[in-house]
Amino acid sequence: MTQPISIGIVGYGNLGRGVEAAIRQNPDLRLEAIFTRRDPDKLEAGTQMVSINDIERYRGKIDVLILCGGSATDLPEQGPALAKLFHTVDSFDTHARIPEYYAEVDASSRAAGTVGVISTGWDPGLFSLNRLLAEAVLPEGSEFTFWGKGVSQGHSDAIRRVPGVKNGIQYTIPREEAVERVRSGENPELSTRDKHLRECYVVAEEGADREAIAETIRTMPNYFADYETVVHFVSEETLAAEHGAMPHGGHVLRSGRTGAGNTQIVEFSLKLDSNPEFTASVLVAYARAAYRLAQKGESGAHTVFDIPFGLLSPKSPEQLRKELL
Amino acid sequence: MTQPISIGIVGYGNLGRGVEAAIRQNPDLRLEAIFTRRDPDKLEAGTQMVSINDIERYRGKIDVLILCGGSATDLPEQGPALAKLFHTVDSFDTHARIPEYYAEVDASSRAAGTVGVISTGWDPGLFSLNRLLAEAVLPEGSEFTFWGKGVSQGHSDAIRRVPGVKNGIQYTIPREEAVERVRSGENPELSTRDKHLRECYVVAEEGADREAIAETIRTMPNYFADYETVVHFVSEETLAAEHGAMPHGGHVLRSGRTGAGNTQIVEFSLKLDSNPEFTASVLVAYARAAYRLAQKGESGAHTVFDIPFGLLSPKSPEQLRKELL
Repeated sequence: MTQPISIGIVGYGNLGRGVEAAIRQNPDLRLEAIFTRRDPDKLEAGTQMVSINDIERYRGKIDVLILCGGSATDLPEQGPALAKLFHTVDSFDTHARIPEYYAEVDASSRAAGTVGVISTGWDPGLFSLNRLLAEAVLPEGSEFTFWGKGVSQGHSDAIRRVPGVKNGIQYTIPREEAVERVRSGENPELSTRDKHLRECYVVAEEGADREAIAETIRTMPNYFADYETVVHFVSEETLAAEHGAMPHGGHVLRSGRTGAGNTQIVEFSLKLDSNPEFTASVLVAYARAAYRLAQKGESGAHTVFDIPFGLLSPKSPEQLRKELL
Repeated sequence: MTQPISIGIVGYGNLGRGVEAAIRQNPDLRLEAIFTRRDPDKLEAGTQMVSINDIERYRGKIDVLILCGGSATDLPEQGPALAKLFHTVDSFDTHARIPEYYAEVDASSRAAGTVGVISTGWDPGLFSLNRLLAEAVLPEGSEFTFWGKGVSQGHSDAIRRVPGVKNGIQYTIPREEAVERVRSGENPELSTRDKHLRECYVVAEEGADREAIAETIRTMPNYFADYETVVHFVSEETLAAEHGAMPHGGHVLRSGRTGAGNTQIVEFSLKLDSNPEFTASVLVAYARAAYRLAQKGESGAHTVFDIPFGLLSPKSPEQLRKELL
């Protein structure tokens, strides 16, 4: 076997830990180091923890760097900076700022001769690929994306700001009847309220007025008022025991029409026990692709739209054609 | 707008007619001619029918040729021959012979400096892409492909050979309970009988022993004996009225595991009113990609694994990043 591809991880939250686990499932990849802003001396032993300040010393030792920071503040700074030093892969997911982020990473990586794969994961990422594919194949049709069941961080934060609320979590849930209407080929007009419902698990402070809390949540503009919102009160223990996992998923559907009016339905669905571990697994497959693009002499920013699936697999093109086509 | 991409169709059965219809849905493509082995003088007017013997005269007038013949005898001959003259796209679907067919088209197209996209459609094609993607992202897991509900031509032919049978059709149907077991993350062991059932609509000859016919079908080795097979007797009129459509579809599922044992389910599903029209729509999107690969100076045989999704869409890379990522 050839030398494994050497990977560095930047950031060691849920996503970084997911990448560490995913690398162990891929024998052609090897974890070289994890870079962190925390004081490396204070981190658990047994990991390959390095201060982010020492990252330049790893040039030549690391083939691809997987950036596991957040899109709000980490990636806008780290992405363009680290693309000057390494081939990179990230999950930048602020949809509105993607063109700008692409331009910055592209400038850095073109100048440095590196490959920067941006905005991968599942949305943006695998969901985006399916939106593009279904639209290209069925130009006459409508697209429907449903998210969940999964935790929305923004909505959970909004609940926790309500007076009398000690803790809480919010799940976005696709309405199965709406999904079924699309699958049936009906091509329905769906309002916000028709597509998703919101389910909240709330820990109230002692003596707080639960009905008032529930009413405040259900009528909160932007976050909940346009939805059917269900509020459950639970104890802190129940919240910790039953709502600590990070499931997510969803459906991308296209309902198209061909010929004299035949309905054609294309659906891509994910049902994930662990959102960060799945996102990490996608990043790791794209790290392999980034390495191969670099080996072919490519440079600059790339998205999932620019990368053939063959580069994601450890198998050779011959093997892929024989086994999977 | 730039000049439309000029397309030629070879073969005018259900698939060729589907390609003709799909081109009308794509303003950046233009149908130049349909090539047929039949006597063009005897074909309906209003179409752009040309004898296959005159195809060489269309060099320079056609950007991409879409080959709509069958995999048994048409494509093994036409694919390598026409790749010497044109960029081509086909739906060669004899899985076992794909490596050999790839090698032949590759030799022709490399020598001629053309691009030959082989074995596209939905299986091989979109299903293959999803098998590869899910395996690359979730290396620890199992893959499940279910086909249907759809007509199997081979099984329909087998029914029609049974003594006393005047006409008949067979549907392959995925067993919903098996699909649900995979979706639930159970990762089940599924036998042939567990995955699909077979439903037959049979027109018996007058006076024929229906119970004997049903028994012969249900116990037929290879075709039906390993399945739960349901046999319905219908009139010739009912068969024509209710079973003339060509629906198909299916599911590609992967049930994977990440981290400390989290289950992750990836599913791609199609529900098609018209199998040939959907296959045709896929071929047309890949014709656009073949043209663009050629514009970039590429040549040789390509499969869906080698082609980035961005090339399938009429939209620019900037527009795709802004609208669909």
